[in-house]
Amino acid sequence: MAYKSIDKEDVLFFKSIVGEKCTIEKSNIEVDFSHDELQTISGYPDIHLYVNDKLQIQNIMKYANQHNIAVTVRGSGTGLVGACVPVNGGVLLDTSQMHKILELDKDNMTLRVEPGVLLMDIANYVEKVDLFYAPDPGEKSATIGGNISTNAGGMRAIKYGVTRDWVRGLEVVLANGELVSFGGKVVKNSSGYSLKDLMIGSEGTLGIIVEATLKLIPLPKETVSLLIPFENRTNAIDAVPKIINGHTLPTAIEFLEKSSLKFSEEYLGKKLPNDDYEAYLLISYDGSTKDSVDYDVEVVSDLCVNQLGAIDVYLVDTEERKKSVWSARGAFLEAIKASTSLIDECDVVIPRTNITEYLDFTHQLSEELEIRIPYFGHAGDGNLHIYFCKDNLSDDDWLNKTNIGFKKMYDKAFEFGGKVSGEHGIGYAKRAYLKDQVGDIQVELMKGIKKTFDPNNILNPNKVI
Amino acid sequence: MAYKSIDKEDVLFFKSIVGEKCTIEKSNIEVDFSHDELQTISGYPDIHLYVNDKLQIQNIMKYANQHNIAVTVRGSGTGLVGACVPVNGGVLLDTSQMHKILELDKDNMTLRVEPGVLLMDIANYVEKVDLFYAPDPGEKSATIGGNISTNAGGMRAIKYGVTRDWVRGLEVVLANGELVSFGGKVVKNSSGYSLKDLMIGSEGTLGIIVEATLKLIPLPKETVSLLIPFENRTNAIDAVPKIINGHTLPTAIEFLEKSSLKFSEEYLGKKLPNDDYEAYLLISYDGSTKDSVDYDVEVVSDLCVNQLGAIDVYLVDTEERKKSVWSARGAFLEAIKASTSLIDECDVVIPRTNITEYLDFTHQLSEELEIRIPYFGHAGDGNLHIYFCKDNLSDDDWLNKTNIGFKKMYDKAFEFGGKVSGEHGIGYAKRAYLKDQVGDIQVELMKGIKKTFDPNNILNPNKVI
Repeated sequence: MAYKSIDKEDVLFFKSIVGEKCTIEKSNIEVDFSHDELQTISGYPDIHLYVNDKLQIQNIMKYANQHNIAVTVRGSGTGLVGACVPVNGGVLLDTSQMHKILELDKDNMTLRVEPGVLLMDIANYVEKVDLFYAPDPGEKSATIGGNISTNAGGMRAIKYGVTRDWVRGLEVVLANGELVSFGGKVVKNSSGYSLKDLMIGSEGTLGIIVEATLKLIPLPKETVSLLIPFENRTNAIDAVPKIINGHTLPTAIEFLEKSSLKFSEEYLGKKLPNDDYEAYLLISYDGSTKDSVDYDVEVVSDLCVNQLGAIDVYLVDTEERKKSVWSARGAFLEAIKASTSLIDECDVVIPRTNITEYLDFTHQLSEELEIRIPYFGHAGDGNLHIYFCKDNLSDDDWLNKTNIGFKKMYDKAFEFGGKVSGEHGIGYAKRAYLKDQVGDIQVELMKGIKKTFDPNNILNPNKVI
Repeated sequence: MAYKSIDKEDVLFFKSIVGEKCTIEKSNIEVDFSHDELQTISGYPDIHLYVNDKLQIQNIMKYANQHNIAVTVRGSGTGLVGACVPVNGGVLLDTSQMHKILELDKDNMTLRVEPGVLLMDIANYVEKVDLFYAPDPGEKSATIGGNISTNAGGMRAIKYGVTRDWVRGLEVVLANGELVSFGGKVVKNSSGYSLKDLMIGSEGTLGIIVEATLKLIPLPKETVSLLIPFENRTNAIDAVPKIINGHTLPTAIEFLEKSSLKFSEEYLGKKLPNDDYEAYLLISYDGSTKDSVDYDVEVVSDLCVNQLGAIDVYLVDTEERKKSVWSARGAFLEAIKASTSLIDECDVVIPRTNITEYLDFTHQLSEELEIRIPYFGHAGDGNLHIYFCKDNLSDDDWLNKTNIGFKKMYDKAFEFGGKVSGEHGIGYAKRAYLKDQVGDIQVELMKGIKKTFDPNNILNPNKVI
């Protein structure tokens, strides 16, 4: 489908809406805005617009819809599947300047924010007043708009769910410029089809999120983390289901393996305490009293050491230990990126009981294809981040091996009832695999929904489906 | 739109699918199957089919789609808005015989069930093995299929959310008979538009739920309830936000008022302990240790008595007390129904900070219209159940007063950002109010979605939109 190229008249119009300073014309667009965090997909917009409020967005969309101009929304650009890359050119609609926190309603326990507010700013803002926004995706400089658009997950999904579970309401500008409101401050809602839930995870293809109302809860007073070494990967991962159904619900169970950990250690120039074991679980609990988390620690320590073959249990209790352990975990993606020239990611989610078998398969595939495949993952929720590394491969070999490898990885995941993406979305890069996963009938349903919301297909074209 | 009437050939076909015994022809259909729990909407099907498996449903839908026959799904028929009433005749597809629990997966903490399994049976089944399905709608004999179709809420929504939050996967038969699967056992999922979430709350208009995979968590070891009397309604309700943001998260906060309580007491022939106060909050906490719930009780008792004007705090600790208090709460709807000839319900949800003002408005309206309007509600989540009672009104007066009254009630709720339905859905009865709430643009989006899923409009026609 051909979109209108942006001409002088269009530029004048956009300048009249967002102002001269916020209109970046093609020749001045920086390379950073032609790709996302992973840099596997690239494409320049014809114009890069920094928007400041919802009215500007409405006016831009009305115009774009009338003139058949493609519009791609971008927040911080921290995505990994090319969702914010304007592969068809047109407008790059940048919401990063819409970063106001609009209202903290302590009585209804909600936070109203603009889409460009960063995840880390939300945490800082609400935790100061002893409130808690629980979703905890690794990338803290992502915008909340981006998090909602991909239904971002994070490390606390076992206990607290994902972004979807924390969005009470959305204001959305539709493809034709109309402003609509889904949900609100209400705790329950059974009033017609949940357009809010349809918008969440739709990666900018159905509408533009211009405001979100988030759910908050009281900040848990006590938190504790444990670093639990095991003799090998299998022992560590096989312990996970037993820990979760052992009558204490952790906030997070992350899996660390020596072979991946070394990237973080090199990258950070810092070693994990007690780093001489093959595999670890990093487990957290939270609660309202010290006694209740102490109880959790006691139960899980006893279980791990006496029944599940753990070598030891280290309490991550000092500030320094906390920092070193969680920064090692947090630096994985950056560290793996820094270890090679190019990476591509498989963000599968599978039932947690199939992780061991899946990682064995991954190791086998790595040998078979002669490609390095480091990984890490949320052992508690079955969401794995598996990276193909280009290293010294030629461009052709890289393309070839990733095509073969990804297809095998996803097909294996589907055998277990797994999904293409646990939290990073489909974007541009994973569309073929989504089709493999859901099949033609569901793709047609999704296309019908897309057509209903965006009949001219101007919103983030060629993404998701 | 005209649907095909069911003729002899159709009957023969349906008998060939579900068998003679499970095919009830028009002349033999019982009156119970022409209405739901509330009896405000009525309509007989042309044929009542008890289905036993998903293949039967697929075959029925293929046939119905080819022959333009309307199909309405029914579980236990405990709805309150006519969603399961076949207002256009055709097939009543009864899933109540599909009540097998298919798989308890302790390691992935999921329960796979057929749609006709009753809510009470799920609770019994999982709690025996120390697991917990948290949604707690009042009507325990509802089917899980019905609960999912209305996104049922219940009393534990403050802490645990609603049905939507506990559905990991769905198998659905589409209008054309195709079987599709949304989600699964996975904890996270960012793989395309969330068709699962679109299906939840769609009240049988987009597809037929033939299997559900539910999320479970470890059963909280300790629970405690408190009955807290206040001098009046306003004091009780205004305490609620302070209790919730007072750094302990209750599982439930229910509101009881003397004037409503008397219906329950009369209906049950049993008095609440300490029943001589104007208004009460009934608050619950749960946790993994006795110490942690004791802490919650201490914090909330201190807060209520010393800062929020509570008269006293009664621990609902003996089995007998628990039974009498929760049965009084549980019997409200039945008791109000028994107190009059006909009722109609307003199931609004509003921000919890607006409940006092909303109930004042309700009292005023009751006087103004000279109609009795008892109510009760989930004070913690802002979902109120407000009943118009016909008593001795003529049919004309009843129609007139409910039309005027409901319009006013909903419009008032919308002023606060409230919604038509917190948990009972839109069905047939509340369609006009949904339109008032969401406006034409969203109705058109919903219609587009409906057309995508059910182009011939045979699935539960004339419901929701």
